[in-house]
Amino acid sequence: MLLTPGADRADGLTDDTAVLSAMLSVESAWAGVLGDLGVLTAQQAQVVADACNPSRYDVSQLAANVESGGNPAIPVVAALRAQVAESDSATAALVHKGLTSQDVIDTAVMLIARDCAAQLQRSLLAAADAVADLAQRERGTVMTARTLGQPAVPTTFGAKAAGWLRGLDDALRAVSALNFPVQCGGAAGTLSLLETLAPGLAATAPGLLADRLGLTEPLGPWHTDRSPVTALGDGLTRASDILGKIAGDIVLAARPEIGELSEPQATGRGGSSTMPQKHNPVLSVLVRSAALQAPHLSASLHTSAALAADERPDGAWHAEWQPVMSLLTLVPTAASQAAEVLSGLEVHREAMQANVDAAMPALVAERRSVRPDESVSAADYLGVVPALIDRTLDAHATLRKELDS
Amino acid sequence: MLLTPGADRADGLTDDTAVLSAMLSVESAWAGVLGDLGVLTAQQAQVVADACNPSRYDVSQLAANVESGGNPAIPVVAALRAQVAESDSATAALVHKGLTSQDVIDTAVMLIARDCAAQLQRSLLAAADAVADLAQRERGTVMTARTLGQPAVPTTFGAKAAGWLRGLDDALRAVSALNFPVQCGGAAGTLSLLETLAPGLAATAPGLLADRLGLTEPLGPWHTDRSPVTALGDGLTRASDILGKIAGDIVLAARPEIGELSEPQATGRGGSSTMPQKHNPVLSVLVRSAALQAPHLSASLHTSAALAADERPDGAWHAEWQPVMSLLTLVPTAASQAAEVLSGLEVHREAMQANVDAAMPALVAERRSVRPDESVSAADYLGVVPALIDRTLDAHATLRKELDS
Amino acid sequence: MLLTPGADRADGLTDDTAVLSAMLSVESAWAGVLGDLGVLTAQQAQVVADACNPSRYDVSQLAANVESGGNPAIPVVAALRAQVAESDSATAALVHKGLTSQDVIDTAVMLIARDCAAQLQRSLLAAADAVADLAQRERGTVMTARTLGQPAVPTTFGAKAAGWLRGLDDALRAVSALNFPVQCGGAAGTLSLLETLAPGLAATAPGLLADRLGLTEPLGPWHTDRSPVTALGDGLTRASDILGKIAGDIVLAARPEIGELSEPQATGRGGSSTMPQKHNPVLSVLVRSAALQAPHLSASLHTSAALAADERPDGAWHAEWQPVMSLLTLVPTAASQAAEVLSGLEVHREAMQANVDAAMPALVAERRSVRPDESVSAADYLGVVPALIDRTLDAHATLRKELDS
Amino acid sequence: MLLTPGADRADGLTDDTAVLSAMLSVESAWAGVLGDLGVLTAQQAQVVADACNPSRYDVSQLAANVESGGNPAIPVVAALRAQVAESDSATAALVHKGLTSQDVIDTAVMLIARDCAAQLQRSLLAAADAVADLAQRERGTVMTARTLGQPAVPTTFGAKAAGWLRGLDDALRAVSALNFPVQCGGAAGTLSLLETLAPGLAATAPGLLADRLGLTEPLGPWHTDRSPVTALGDGLTRASDILGKIAGDIVLAARPEIGELSEPQATGRGGSSTMPQKHNPVLSVLVRSAALQAPHLSASLHTSAALAADERPDGAWHAEWQPVMSLLTLVPTAASQAAEVLSGLEVHREAMQANVDAAMPALVAERRSVRPDESVSAADYLGVVPALIDRTLDAHATLRKELDS
Repeated sequence: MLLTPGADRADGLTDDTAVLSAMLSVESAWAGVLGDLGVLTAQQAQVVADACNPSRYDVSQLAANVESGGNPAIPVVAALRAQVAESDSATAALVHKGLTSQDVIDTAVMLIARDCAAQLQRSLLAAADAVADLAQRERGTVMTARTLGQPAVPTTFGAKAAGWLRGLDDALRAVSALNFPVQCGGAAGTLSLLETLAPGLAATAPGLLADRLGLTEPLGPWHTDRSPVTALGDGLTRASDILGKIAGDIVLAARPEIGELSEPQATGRGGSSTMPQKHNPVLSVLVRSAALQAPHLSASLHTSAALAADERPDGAWHAEWQPVMSLLTLVPTAASQAAEVLSGLEVHREAMQANVDAAMPALVAERRSVRPDESVSAADYLGVVPALIDRTLDAHATLRKELDS
Repeated sequence: MLLTPGADRADGLTDDTAVLSAMLSVESAWAGVLGDLGVLTAQQAQVVADACNPSRYDVSQLAANVESGGNPAIPVVAALRAQVAESDSATAALVHKGLTSQDVIDTAVMLIARDCAAQLQRSLLAAADAVADLAQRERGTVMTARTLGQPAVPTTFGAKAAGWLRGLDDALRAVSALNFPVQCGGAAGTLSLLETLAPGLAATAPGLLADRLGLTEPLGPWHTDRSPVTALGDGLTRASDILGKIAGDIVLAARPEIGELSEPQATGRGGSSTMPQKHNPVLSVLVRSAALQAPHLSASLHTSAALAADERPDGAWHAEWQPVMSLLTLVPTAASQAAEVLSGLEVHREAMQANVDAAMPALVAERRSVRPDESVSAADYLGVVPALIDRTLDAHATLRKELDS
Repeated sequence: MLLTPGADRADGLTDDTAVLSAMLSVESAWAGVLGDLGVLTAQQAQVVADACNPSRYDVSQLAANVESGGNPAIPVVAALRAQVAESDSATAALVHKGLTSQDVIDTAVMLIARDCAAQLQRSLLAAADAVADLAQRERGTVMTARTLGQPAVPTTFGAKAAGWLRGLDDALRAVSALNFPVQCGGAAGTLSLLETLAPGLAATAPGLLADRLGLTEPLGPWHTDRSPVTALGDGLTRASDILGKIAGDIVLAARPEIGELSEPQATGRGGSSTMPQKHNPVLSVLVRSAALQAPHLSASLHTSAALAADERPDGAWHAEWQPVMSLLTLVPTAASQAAEVLSGLEVHREAMQANVDAAMPALVAERRSVRPDESVSAADYLGVVPALIDRTLDAHATLRKELDS
Repeated sequence: MLLTPGADRADGLTDDTAVLSAMLSVESAWAGVLGDLGVLTAQQAQVVADACNPSRYDVSQLAANVESGGNPAIPVVAALRAQVAESDSATAALVHKGLTSQDVIDTAVMLIARDCAAQLQRSLLAAADAVADLAQRERGTVMTARTLGQPAVPTTFGAKAAGWLRGLDDALRAVSALNFPVQCGGAAGTLSLLETLAPGLAATAPGLLADRLGLTEPLGPWHTDRSPVTALGDGLTRASDILGKIAGDIVLAARPEIGELSEPQATGRGGSSTMPQKHNPVLSVLVRSAALQAPHLSASLHTSAALAADERPDGAWHAEWQPVMSLLTLVPTAASQAAEVLSGLEVHREAMQANVDAAMPALVAERRSVRPDESVSAADYLGVVPALIDRTLDAHATLRKELDS
């Protein structure tokens, strides 16, 4: 955590305890499914559910046994069976029966992803709302639009914020459209063992498991069709892209030579270990750092997907775990940081105006190219800015309603 | 082209001529929009449209002038103006007016992307249909399911094909959901110049341009909100992931020691420069090679998106062009190759059976763990395979109907 | 750790305690340098050194304070000053003076990297030695060489092992050539504060610090010339590439239809959560999974390097920490796993021969293309195999000597 | 070329004609080797060499035949044999004998890489020399050092240039250390066919081929040990990283609000398609765009290396071609652009001073933290700047000598 600033914002949703907890939730829900199908009695299912309490297990001891089976489901299932066996050895033998390690781990990852995505969505929405306020409030604040780093034509900070808002709303839409399916196929996607235990009923199991966990039922197992994982990575990266763009704009504008924006101040934030005067735009810097990492992590998931051999990959599946957990930590953290920045962003209107003044009259040279004889101010050359802001704010209001419902 | 095997399948959709042609289509449509808004007369618009004939321009000469402006719109607009000026210098001065280079290039890329995506969709559908046939035909062909490279439990080749089909249909859905918006914001997203030329009307221009080009109208300019580009990359990579997975399975199964599948033979295909006996599964190998590249190219687009500073990025936009064109060439080519392989895939049922026999009785050891006293054949331990195949085929039929309508 | 199988092989070299410990080592050594330069008395330097005991600090409490300054040096320096201040407030004020956060963190990362690289080198050497034994022992074991997955011509397993050895030795050379410089530039690379405190002496500080820490002295500060970091990533990835190649070959050869190699057995290793018969080549699978991740992580470091703005980057530096620590954990772990596999690799000569026999006579079709009338066995068509093995083994022996000296 | 601005700087070294030409050079040299070994007479070798004239072949026709064999060597060898057969069918049968497609293509890529690396080295050296001049000339030009985008402490532009120079010299060293080995192993690395044709002599062939082509002799074939390719990618990316860093600094400093640097002006350069006032720092923008792409392309090569299965990979080799050719085009182009920028870089000393003045007295707050009662100017707080510049320039002079010799 020393080298992941702000990762405490992720509320432990992705740490080892969360992973263990999610895996035990899957096993507990699966015991319920086995109860539904008559493989276990209701009482037996309850015994298993009771044993699925993370506090009963020593995470670091389990972690030490992950390598030999190649994945954490093997030691977790063994430990769970041992727990259950203390009270009931017949039930212990049926723990996990019908599932495979990948069912447990993929489903656990989806549980974690769902919670992280919900957190991310809340932060993105807070960020978007803050930006919508800026778009409205600063709709007429004239500033310099810049292309390739150079003054281009006038715009307003409200228009710029509206551009940010369109990006955030795109990301919100992408994140809210994510799908979190259970993985439930048994050893190789055929649910053969379950069908043996509950003849004629196995095909209903994925739906039952999904209901119990609040996930969705997929069309079939996705052990080697990894689109739920890559879609997750793509959605998270979509979010981090726009967060990175906004943070980059803020870091630029916070340079004192430009001086148009400042991060909200907080005691002790933005300091230096050696320079007393420093007020670094540190949250924006951290958001940017997340945005630089996410594309690589997401690409790693795609590489794995392209190599998902056979009925369970020979390495490509295992290669997903670290990048997906990194993304699930990094992007919600960055969104939370960005929401904080945007909610208190300080807008320096006078600096914006001063920069515009310094760029004039070249800033309206485009207009002179068609109206050489007319002189206009920057504020007179704003084109469709008002309509564009209104349209963007209307779309945001509509999206808010959709997300609420 | 020597080092891009099969790129001729892309039908030149992404070569320099196509780029020029797309850019001229944008300028021609824009002249139409200027006509709609009364900035040009219908006759003037037609003069421009006539000049937007790619055959009138020397691509390599234009290419030599790209660097000094940093993008190809600048020399193309200059050449187009020169063409128009031969007949009408007043009109020439109005060519392109209201747009910016990025409007032309982003829209041109979207035109190309739309056509490539349509081609990709056709190939994916052909591949999916071929796989659906395999799923149906081989629904009872028992084979070995493998996990981590080792025999796991029995499955059927129909079930395996159904797994491929779910992946292809996911990709089809992702590709068919792609959105190809026009870019139309002027110098910095405010359409100020157009509003000067056509007061009160500029806000209608993006919709008019979209109609003329058969693209969609975005909520606003996306000069620095690059989600249309990253969504394109993600969608293409989604497709290449599943193509790579399938191709990898085929290359594995075509190893003679496994011997379960062969690529369709074609005269001269799969040969070696030194080994006369060779029948390499060369199309599958090439599909796999595309799938290994695509994640990196798509990640490059996300890196650019995260760095889309100001109102036009200072390098990150320019960094998109090569990766996006590479993806638009690579993935449709791979899909076409895959469709050809899958349409003629040779299934060696006897080898599948022989491999099952060799793996027995361990292949049903899972079942013996719950029914130690019963002996079963591989064909008796197939779980929900029939239901899974039916369900997958039904979903494919539904998707086909959706895509047709 | 649940989702990083085998990471305990990394001996905690990269965990939070190690990071804290490395940072405190830097501060302690720096106090020594300040002593050397007369800024601190020897006794004061000792007071600081005594306070640099990691056990005196609560890592999780420090971690909670990382975000506000954007990096861990700020809370660590504050905590260290507080420790020192308990006995001596004048000394406390001089703790860390002359350095900047990046000096501490970059140097700490290099300390960790040096130790991880040493561990990696030991594992690579063990792997290479094991492979050298295989090359020697199996020099005459005829097997099928395969290209594009298809039988090509005969080779021997010794020749194949010699190919692995050349790759491992390349990686060893790359890793042993890595350079671990101190970072010592002060606030912005000018060592101004130190020069104020020790006029005329500041330029000697980097060398003194390097000596104390067993690192090298760079030509100058590399706050924004990140080649030490990218070179580290490249070297680690060079190693993981060849490890991945070898692991992939083993996983393939361990498929029972090929059956030429097996991982060494260990109690409980390679099991499944549902299939009792399973002996998965799990270490090789994990090595492969590391090799699929490393290129993306290393690329992330290059992206950061390309964006190292000003005198300290505005996000790109912070974006290095996670990828570099992931690589430093992942690759040495994979090398250790690979060394274990290779040291006990089971070679199935009879399966190699059977596969050769099944591929004959096509396996020597190349030879028949020039000698159509002569019939040869596979063992007669081995070309330069003996010379190639000898040459490779000689080079390995030479490299061993170089590394020893 | 429309979407690769400045690629004409690459002098066609990487286009299809260059690829064909390199492949024919390999075949021609190989005929020479066959002559050396007595397989061909000197006259026959000359017949082949004469036929290896690229102008005799239609590249686009060859390109159309690449897919069926999966690589360009197959149609090129066929066309070459047909050419030779016109005069001498016995010789035609011996063309290419002993090699495999991968030998030809890998060696051709190395030939191209050598030439591109030489071009890159020249440009890097020109850039470094220009920067060395700046370091010397501006050694006393006080400016603001910036960290996290904020003013930190004073430095000089000479010191900043010295930092660039250390990076460029690192890159120069990395590029000049690149190794370009021939690939010469025959069908699967055993040179069996050649040994059949020239008993006892085959092991000498790689050295002979290397001598004829001006490449190096490797320890053995590297068909599936891809370190020569990944080292190439790493070296090129090392160069593009520092170029990107420098270009980013220039683009930032060219923002008029900062105004410290400008790209050299050239007629027509940096213009806009709509804004007449624009002087965009377009070369720096393009350099930056290359630097954003290179890490992803290089990572693609590592992914391929990690998947180099068997004795020739089943897709991973083919996946190298596009990324390596893109890198070989992109990075030398960027270096040439950077050299042009740096050779004429305009330094605005008064703006540097004005920015320093505006940042005072906070800019020396660090010093006040230890000397609260002394007032100093920015120019008084420059620490080891002079020594650092001298040391860097000395090292550059030494490197120049090494490169010359």
